Amino acid sequence: MHIVFVLYDRMTALDAVGPYEVLSRLPGAEVTFAAAAAGPVNTDTGALRLTATTSLAHAPAPDLVLVPGGPDIAAQVTDAPLHAWLRAVDAGTTWMTSVCTGSLILAAAGLLRGRRATSHWLAADRLPAYGAIPSPGRVILDGHYATAAGVSAGIDLALTLADRIAGPQVAQSIQLAIEYDPAPPFAAGSPASAPPPIVAFLRANRHLIMSS
Amino acid sequence: MHIVFVLYDRMTALDAVGPYEVLSRLPGAEVTFAAAAAGPVNTDTGALRLTATTSLAHAPAPDLVLVPGGPDIAAQVTDAPLHAWLRAVDAGTTWMTSVCTGSLILAAAGLLRGRRATSHWLAADRLPAYGAIPSPGRVILDGHYATAAGVSAGIDLALTLADRIAGPQVAQSIQLAIEYDPAPPFAAGSPASAPPPIVAFLRANRHLIMSS
Repeated sequence: MHIVFVLYDRMTALDAVGPYEVLSRLPGAEVTFAAAAAGPVNTDTGALRLTATTSLAHAPAPDLVLVPGGPDIAAQVTDAPLHAWLRAVDAGTTWMTSVCTGSLILAAAGLLRGRRATSHWLAADRLPAYGAIPSPGRVILDGHYATAAGVSAGIDLALTLADRIAGPQVAQSIQLAIEYDPAPPFAAGSPASAPPPIVAFLRANRHLIMSS
Repeated sequence: MHIVFVLYDRMTALDAVGPYEVLSRLPGAEVTFAAAAAGPVNTDTGALRLTATTSLAHAPAPDLVLVPGGPDIAAQVTDAPLHAWLRAVDAGTTWMTSVCTGSLILAAAGLLRGRRATSHWLAADRLPAYGAIPSPGRVILDGHYATAAGVSAGIDLALTLADRIAGPQVAQSIQLAIEYDPAPPFAAGSPASAPPPIVAFLRANRHLIMSS
């Protein structure tokens, strides 16, 4: 299956690389990183560049698309050529997916109207502006749309999709291959579990994480 | 603090990108991706390239070094210039770290003699050949050496280091910012938790994961 990861300037690297590390291990996976134009793409910190090996216009017809998020997606929620590409390939995909604020890009392209979706916990309240229905959960499937919560949630999304695509034995083999037996040192990964002062700090300083 | 991520041909992307997404958020972090030579570096699937913005020789003196692993590190366990660089910067670092089979590279450079360390579960048995002591655990700290188990374990390593470097409030803020509240769809992420037939399959087909 052809899997296309959409890259763009100031995206968050882990949003794409987490799911890539799972989905690229699916039997028969052919993975392409694509952007508006081929070449290196800067991620949000400015320290890491990923390479788009082709332009979206020249990417193979995808069976699965993943749109990552980022702290500043102002340009992507108004990117008409990107939206046109997403709408054009959508009907041919088995899965149209996003991680973090990537769901806002899918939604802005008009793909999530009336669909349940999730996003980064600090951005999910922006989904209704595009007709999507914010839904609690780390991974939300609605039809062939699959959205994940913030950044690291893409790994859980990808394992969920691996199960749907290739069955539980393949999904579990991939999980064991990447030794995904998470053991976070704190219970602080969601606003429900994190200490309230930490949640309040990030809400009050949202600009530290989200610049658009 | 200066953080240098070592890149090399056929490395596993998530080994570096997981910890990077945590450590780059530390206050005052200055992150550099460096390789033998500046330029794009192919990762293990051939589909994703990361860019080294400088050569190791020109990288800033690091406070923290992270060496990722990969399925084929035959060239890196015999890479004399890489080993010489690691040994040269080691004394100046606060943390010398690795993810997955990156620990075999640190060990081959002579840095883990008599030290407890971990690696990918299919590779930890190679540590004693370099004088390191394989130790059970997803993240192992011994002195200023910090090693993580396979691939995804780098995220847990980095949050552990974030706590040591900047304290629990910063570490928890970063964890919440990247919404690291993992919810794997299966209990299959370690040989202890995965269904025995899955473990047996990967042990019997080790070459699917490790080519050296």
